[in-house]
Amino acid sequence: MDTVGLGTVFGSEVLGTAILILLGVGVVANVSLPKSFGNGGGWIVIIFGWGLAVFAGVYAAASSGAHLNPAVTIGLLVSGADQYAPGVDVSVASTLVYLAAELIGAILGAVLAWAAYRAHYDDPEAAGTQLGTFSTGPAIKSTADNLVTEAIGTFVLIYIILRFGDTPTEIGPLAVALLVVGIGASLGGPTGYAINPARDLGPRIAHAILPIKGKGDSNWGYAWVPVVGPLIGAVLAGGLSHVSF
Amino acid sequence: MDTVGLGTVFGSEVLGTAILILLGVGVVANVSLPKSFGNGGGWIVIIFGWGLAVFAGVYAAASSGAHLNPAVTIGLLVSGADQYAPGVDVSVASTLVYLAAELIGAILGAVLAWAAYRAHYDDPEAAGTQLGTFSTGPAIKSTADNLVTEAIGTFVLIYIILRFGDTPTEIGPLAVALLVVGIGASLGGPTGYAINPARDLGPRIAHAILPIKGKGDSNWGYAWVPVVGPLIGAVLAGGLSHVSF
Amino acid sequence: MDTVGLGTVFGSEVLGTAILILLGVGVVANVSLPKSFGNGGGWIVIIFGWGLAVFAGVYAAASSGAHLNPAVTIGLLVSGADQYAPGVDVSVASTLVYLAAELIGAILGAVLAWAAYRAHYDDPEAAGTQLGTFSTGPAIKSTADNLVTEAIGTFVLIYIILRFGDTPTEIGPLAVALLVVGIGASLGGPTGYAINPARDLGPRIAHAILPIKGKGDSNWGYAWVPVVGPLIGAVLAGGLSHVSF
Amino acid sequence: MDTVGLGTVFGSEVLGTAILILLGVGVVANVSLPKSFGNGGGWIVIIFGWGLAVFAGVYAAASSGAHLNPAVTIGLLVSGADQYAPGVDVSVASTLVYLAAELIGAILGAVLAWAAYRAHYDDPEAAGTQLGTFSTGPAIKSTADNLVTEAIGTFVLIYIILRFGDTPTEIGPLAVALLVVGIGASLGGPTGYAINPARDLGPRIAHAILPIKGKGDSNWGYAWVPVVGPLIGAVLAGGLSHVSF
Repeated sequence: MDTVGLGTVFGSEVLGTAILILLGVGVVANVSLPKSFGNGGGWIVIIFGWGLAVFAGVYAAASSGAHLNPAVTIGLLVSGADQYAPGVDVSVASTLVYLAAELIGAILGAVLAWAAYRAHYDDPEAAGTQLGTFSTGPAIKSTADNLVTEAIGTFVLIYIILRFGDTPTEIGPLAVALLVVGIGASLGGPTGYAINPARDLGPRIAHAILPIKGKGDSNWGYAWVPVVGPLIGAVLAGGLSHVSF
Repeated sequence: MDTVGLGTVFGSEVLGTAILILLGVGVVANVSLPKSFGNGGGWIVIIFGWGLAVFAGVYAAASSGAHLNPAVTIGLLVSGADQYAPGVDVSVASTLVYLAAELIGAILGAVLAWAAYRAHYDDPEAAGTQLGTFSTGPAIKSTADNLVTEAIGTFVLIYIILRFGDTPTEIGPLAVALLVVGIGASLGGPTGYAINPARDLGPRIAHAILPIKGKGDSNWGYAWVPVVGPLIGAVLAGGLSHVSF
Repeated sequence: MDTVGLGTVFGSEVLGTAILILLGVGVVANVSLPKSFGNGGGWIVIIFGWGLAVFAGVYAAASSGAHLNPAVTIGLLVSGADQYAPGVDVSVASTLVYLAAELIGAILGAVLAWAAYRAHYDDPEAAGTQLGTFSTGPAIKSTADNLVTEAIGTFVLIYIILRFGDTPTEIGPLAVALLVVGIGASLGGPTGYAINPARDLGPRIAHAILPIKGKGDSNWGYAWVPVVGPLIGAVLAGGLSHVSF
Repeated sequence: MDTVGLGTVFGSEVLGTAILILLGVGVVANVSLPKSFGNGGGWIVIIFGWGLAVFAGVYAAASSGAHLNPAVTIGLLVSGADQYAPGVDVSVASTLVYLAAELIGAILGAVLAWAAYRAHYDDPEAAGTQLGTFSTGPAIKSTADNLVTEAIGTFVLIYIILRFGDTPTEIGPLAVALLVVGIGASLGGPTGYAINPARDLGPRIAHAILPIKGKGDSNWGYAWVPVVGPLIGAVLAGGLSHVSF
């Protein structure tokens, strides 16, 4: 029986995912929008920015276990976990609440990032490049390769999260933050490492809706790849977690 | 009843904020003054420098809870906290002591940073650029946007600090240091992330007073924005903390 | 008597080393392959990528003590340890299982990294440079110097790991991850810091086998250096650990 | 009564300081010697390299409290501490043992760093620049300013170390490592942050002795500044620690 209500789960995941995406979209905006002080800060800023976005988001969503990512929810489901968080049973209803909250939070976070960088998004020099701050795209377009890359990156994320309990530490959310820094460093090159369907789809929806000057299209043709690739990785990770080493 | 005297609070916050600002102004000086060894170190050095400035400052101000920032004090006040630190009750007097100590410490820290970089500040090649090492300014001047950016950044800072207790770890001051690194990475681009009224106002006062060759004006027209924006964010964070997730 | 079976050790070390090498080869691919988003990210990305590759790999290989490196296995052997991990006795059989699993895992990890970056490896602009993402080579070829550099780097790695127990913390795998970041920063310049025979030999074998367009040869003439150098360092570290300070 | 013998203290501090300086000199060599793989890695690599050099050195010198720095020894002395480490009483003899071991360890560490980078030190392209990898020098030569900068940086180091006990965490040597990263980021610009007399003097002696092609002179005229400046900072920090906040 759930002792944490699904309304609490919903609010917690919306808030946590919003903070994740606010900081995540924010760091890409900072590094890539031409007049921003972080412009040219490079990949090291991007990967620490996203990692620490997870760090902050996890604190905000403490009461729901801080999934912040449909791949986490699906990975836990496939792993056979009884609970999504202390006091939150795995069920069809709770699964849907997590997935919905993650997507809604991601849209909200992208809107907040846009608000923080609004003048920079409307800068004529930024025209046509804004989508890259919201959602991912491939460096070399190749659907099968791009799916494989996203599946591998997400597999590492979810499998290691499922193994955290075997090596207890007292560093808390820093562990998953550093894991995300590492995945970005190592596996982010070909596709920009969505490794989270909500992280890509939510901001893409925000990009489509928001009034940004010269924003161009939202590249919907690619949108399914960073949803499906991560889900494949999550299912593989949840499945492998049944093998005991 | 207070068991830590307000004199102790005052001394502790002055010292901690001075160390915060010494290291914070110092890192910007290091990266931007033309002959400094860190010149050209980029945004990654800036954000780790400021984050670790918080890290050091928190150790120095342990006995007063290490606010170091009026936005922390006001955020705690709005959150309805009973104490500003173990043994320090929330009251009009204690609130004023924190705010005064933070501002005085920030001025002192900026003077120390100037002392550490004195020859570099007087370098003719640095003429006209020194203010940027002391206080913040907008990349694109737009008052409403700049206020929004500062409010959002400070909201994240204060809200997550208020939530730290829900996810206990043993990393201590490293948590807030990394949070500040993350906010700098992600939300520092448009305004240089004051996210702390004392951090901006104190060094600006120091800039106005110190004998620096070719220093130019202190841009007082902008000075209220990095005071008001952070306070708005702090009030919102303190208010949201009343909602339980 | 072993309470963790050698089959478990084998699977655990294969998986952990595969994740280490997936992320380690991945970060070099990301930074050096010309169209990758991390291209030009520089040494700081390389060293954090490898350090966090260790971080992830250690979680994956928790049940076997996460050697991931023949130098760790040999260092422990020379140090006179009774066990390679809780429940795994030191014996000829267990030693061989560790060494075999580390090499096989390293090959597997390199194949996975190739899969993640496949389109980038076949990019004509990358022709002739791919080996550098798989295995190490000297900046200045000088066999004796290169052996010394690898021996010193590995000595630091193994000796400090053997001393971790004297200063207990609760940061877990982060300690060894940061140690590897530091060794990369400081001692990686002359030879690319293999500091792990499997890390170099496994990916070199993968490079020789994998169908990569324009890949050039696998530089087998150098292959023994990053095997022998690290083993010398490991033996010295294991030996010095008998001296008590 | 000492329960850790002074011979143990000596060996422990020699080893720990040697590892500190091996990695510290190493990172500067890596970033600045022209053919090294880390060449051009910038200030961020330097500051993490030195910080993690401390991290490794502290583990190696666990049994003597890991001073690794005469400024730590003198700071503790002035602070009125009873012991330099658990089981090591403060006395004239123990003080001299620490100081001697720190200097000898620093020379040894510099020799090891030279061994690791030997071919790079003899590279004709490096001629005349090698001293900068061994010891510090001012960006703008100004004796009084340089002393002030070293005193301020060392004050922060020693004072915060003396305050670590007031905010207990479980991150162990990582705390001082990050403090050193922060001081490097913020206060390293004018003088290269010796903040440790042995760190500067030991490698300078090594530079004078070692057979390096085209090495130039060892700049003995500046050598006293990074000895005296840090000692001033250490005395001030030890003194301030008597004030209780």
